[in-house]
Amino acid sequence: MEVQSIAVSSSVVVFFLIVLFRVPEAVSGRPLAYGKPDPKDAAATARWLVAQNSWGVLSTISSDSGGSPFGNVVSFSDGVPGEGCGIPYFYLTQLDPTARYALVDERSSFTLSEFPLGSCGKKDPENPSCAKLTLTGKLKLLDNQSSEAEFAQNALFSKHAEMKDWPKSHNFQIFKLEIEDIFLVDWFGGPKPLSPDQYFSFAKNVAVA
Amino acid sequence: MEVQSIAVSSSVVVFFLIVLFRVPEAVSGRPLAYGKPDPKDAAATARWLVAQNSWGVLSTISSDSGGSPFGNVVSFSDGVPGEGCGIPYFYLTQLDPTARYALVDERSSFTLSEFPLGSCGKKDPENPSCAKLTLTGKLKLLDNQSSEAEFAQNALFSKHAEMKDWPKSHNFQIFKLEIEDIFLVDWFGGPKPLSPDQYFSFAKNVAVA
Repeated sequence: MEVQSIAVSSSVVVFFLIVLFRVPEAVSGRPLAYGKPDPKDAAATARWLVAQNSWGVLSTISSDSGGSPFGNVVSFSDGVPGEGCGIPYFYLTQLDPTARYALVDERSSFTLSEFPLGSCGKKDPENPSCAKLTLTGKLKLLDNQSSEAEFAQNALFSKHAEMKDWPKSHNFQIFKLEIEDIFLVDWFGGPKPLSPDQYFSFAKNVAVA
Repeated sequence: MEVQSIAVSSSVVVFFLIVLFRVPEAVSGRPLAYGKPDPKDAAATARWLVAQNSWGVLSTISSDSGGSPFGNVVSFSDGVPGEGCGIPYFYLTQLDPTARYALVDERSSFTLSEFPLGSCGKKDPENPSCAKLTLTGKLKLLDNQSSEAEFAQNALFSKHAEMKDWPKSHNFQIFKLEIEDIFLVDWFGGPKPLSPDQYFSFAKNVAVA
């Protein structure tokens, strides 16, 4: 009886430890939040936000309604996990307005927040120390025979497994944002100066987890 | 020895149960997702997304860069919890570009996703059954002496407690989105037709939790 009781309590302890230390990913399917850079390092923070987030809001100019801005929820990827290149790639169908609008007027912006990563704690999503990033530039359709399209498809499918099974009849196409301007707020005192060159030259050949 | 072992295993089981069944809110401070409407009910779904989310992306036209769209992460509220009116109110400073842009060109859109609420499970954020909403219209500065401004301030401060302590020197002002068009995707088969009248007449006098 004593041996049996110890055996039961041991297996309960093991199970309990598994539950306690499991990674929280299963809670909502969101990427894990770890390794947030020092807010003083603007390039690291911007690249981390792009590497960690799986979705954002892509804004284009609506040709249906006389030039109003139109923000749309989209998934994206800048590389296979741990090897982000900083360029956001998208998998869009012209059944959705964003791709259609971009083919008429390619001016667009892509906006990300730290808040859904879970690392802002109890801070308000609009608190400047809860980082936010807007990449502004041109949304370009990739040639689907190019090596960049191959890279982008691997980037997208590795982070968004269901994409490879999306209906062929919807004619999904790969787009990228050519970044021209970067707006990053990650602390008090206004946006951090950050050029596309600084953004892209951050940690070359170093994985951004 | 036997009694001690049983006592230890019992306390471990209790602790394990607490860990297993704790509410997930503590993981990231996000609002809990409950009561998602039937996707067939477009008005209910749109109002639920607005009532449940605490932040979104507000897109305006950038007067700094020749009319490009500019999406920005902002907090918002449409009412005290359980009493949302459907109008998104914002607390913005002209130190941030969005308020400045809106005062030059008030055309704007506000975009929300179901994904950060946690109720999309393992679905991709771009999967049509993970709901997304874009409200398009005009971003208007409220007269701070009006009764609407008083309502809006209660709406904002009740959901964003730290706002009341934000620096007076930043001159935060209350804006609202006057909704003219609604883009809602909450299932397969394209956007759901939903007029502003249908959106606003949903569940009048009924709490939208």
